[in-house]
Amino acid sequence: MLAIAVAGLTTTQAQDPLPSWNDGAAKKAIVEFVQSTTTQGSQKFVPTSERVATFDQDGTLWVEYPMYSQVMYCLDRVPALVKAKPELAKVEPFKTVMSGNREAMAKMSKDDLLKIVAATLTGMSVDEFQAEVKKWLVEARDSRWKKPYTELTYLPMQEVLKYLRANGYKTYIVTGGGQDFVRMYSEATYGIPLEQVVGSVGGTKYGYAKDGKPFLTKEPRLLLNDNNAGKPEGIHLMIGRRPYAAFGNSTGDRQMLEYTKAGDGARLSMLLLHDDAKREYAYGPAKGLPDAKVGNFPQPLYDEATKQGWTVISMKNDWKKIFAFEE
Amino acid sequence: MLAIAVAGLTTTQAQDPLPSWNDGAAKKAIVEFVQSTTTQGSQKFVPTSERVATFDQDGTLWVEYPMYSQVMYCLDRVPALVKAKPELAKVEPFKTVMSGNREAMAKMSKDDLLKIVAATLTGMSVDEFQAEVKKWLVEARDSRWKKPYTELTYLPMQEVLKYLRANGYKTYIVTGGGQDFVRMYSEATYGIPLEQVVGSVGGTKYGYAKDGKPFLTKEPRLLLNDNNAGKPEGIHLMIGRRPYAAFGNSTGDRQMLEYTKAGDGARLSMLLLHDDAKREYAYGPAKGLPDAKVGNFPQPLYDEATKQGWTVISMKNDWKKIFAFEE
Repeated sequence: MLAIAVAGLTTTQAQDPLPSWNDGAAKKAIVEFVQSTTTQGSQKFVPTSERVATFDQDGTLWVEYPMYSQVMYCLDRVPALVKAKPELAKVEPFKTVMSGNREAMAKMSKDDLLKIVAATLTGMSVDEFQAEVKKWLVEARDSRWKKPYTELTYLPMQEVLKYLRANGYKTYIVTGGGQDFVRMYSEATYGIPLEQVVGSVGGTKYGYAKDGKPFLTKEPRLLLNDNNAGKPEGIHLMIGRRPYAAFGNSTGDRQMLEYTKAGDGARLSMLLLHDDAKREYAYGPAKGLPDAKVGNFPQPLYDEATKQGWTVISMKNDWKKIFAFEE
Repeated sequence: MLAIAVAGLTTTQAQDPLPSWNDGAAKKAIVEFVQSTTTQGSQKFVPTSERVATFDQDGTLWVEYPMYSQVMYCLDRVPALVKAKPELAKVEPFKTVMSGNREAMAKMSKDDLLKIVAATLTGMSVDEFQAEVKKWLVEARDSRWKKPYTELTYLPMQEVLKYLRANGYKTYIVTGGGQDFVRMYSEATYGIPLEQVVGSVGGTKYGYAKDGKPFLTKEPRLLLNDNNAGKPEGIHLMIGRRPYAAFGNSTGDRQMLEYTKAGDGARLSMLLLHDDAKREYAYGPAKGLPDAKVGNFPQPLYDEATKQGWTVISMKNDWKKIFAFEE
């Protein structure tokens, strides 16, 4: 009897592509979307070549609170930058970062942050940048769980990525973060090859080293700000197809969710709600939740979801488990 | 006896991945490259995820002489443009195009051409543009063979594309032509999905139709001029990996061939020589061949190939057959 029960359980688990999800509207919407778009003969069938699903990263695939990991990278790079250019030690905003005063750093303006971003993400060769990011990814730890950032991905979303891929979908990251930065871990962390990462991106400049070898230098010239309207624009630029499914969590994802949902046939747009103060954080975008420090999640986005037929995912109610490392 | 001979022949043909190529240095270089990078245990083995091969399009995968097909598209679009905006009929360079005077059209300056390109490739929605290109591709015929442009691809290069893909390589087009334009036929014509087309590309603008539906408008703002140094820059932007193999035919491909060859391990850079006046055209880039009207193929590029270890493909000597439609 026990053997049969165990066998039955195993079979059920094997059949459930989303074991970390509670049964509910969100899980149902994902499963129904996949079944209706991949079943031959279904009115909503989508040919394999057109199966594209896009995922915001920060706050959708991994933790973005209290600060984007890439901003942490930029701040962590400032000491090395100041060592190379000592004159920066007396210049703001570098002076504040060097002081280590967290309170003062939290108050830095967007312009100050952009100066730090430009100084730490551009001006070096692509190879140098990649080596620095690789090193940082191994060494850096988040402040709450004391783990590498790449372990702070949401297990239920990892299951969605795998489930979609197992059904012929090409999964893309479409992030406001730096394309070159996210490409350094997308494959190992999400199983998403680096050529399937669309992000904010600057130009590079082709030139030659002293030994005649050609190399690319990262320039501050912005080609794509992959936020808000930049997301559908970036999708057209880099993918060239309207997604059938899109996942986001902030106002920066609004246009991507809207553009996806506006296509013909079955389209799945999902908005992730950070409403779990205990297991993760509670900051929006829903009634009664505070605004996030790291972003802008006003109540209207939640209303928009209802109005436009996006499916809301509640971390608190829809997810059995948030991280793979949880007991 | 005959049966055995036929069976033997069939086996030989089945084993030859490049049946339209004559035996010679070019064919040998391709086969050796594929074998050394895909054989487990080979010192030059390349993991599947890194197998990237890039192909220039015009003059490398299909005919570019006497004029790029996309320029023909732009010229063909002028009457409809003038119909929509009658004031253009009196303005150069549109006036010259409307006159139908081929000699005058051939003399147009680069600036004039750019005005026509901007007016016919931007300012409309992505959907409108795609519908126009689709229609044109079916209707337009080249001047010499009287065939759709998509039939003027080089059979030996089609074999190289298939051979590389059969060995785990992802094949990309990296073209100076318009990314949105080439994407409209890359899949049907070359088996290259549209997301694997890198080309010269402008920005788009996200907006809303009267019914509230979002759409993208093609803007004249250039993001990437995918020629010369723009090719490795575009490869980094869109693919994010240095190719292991690259194929080109003009000075616009020089940096891509150089950048590819400068990588570690086995790298294949190939330069296609248009030296077959009878079956196609003879215009370069080699000694004694005239410069092409459509491009710039100076002698130094051929010297560069020798110096940098690129393999030259002679259409005349290396290719048994140029087009699939040949007897």
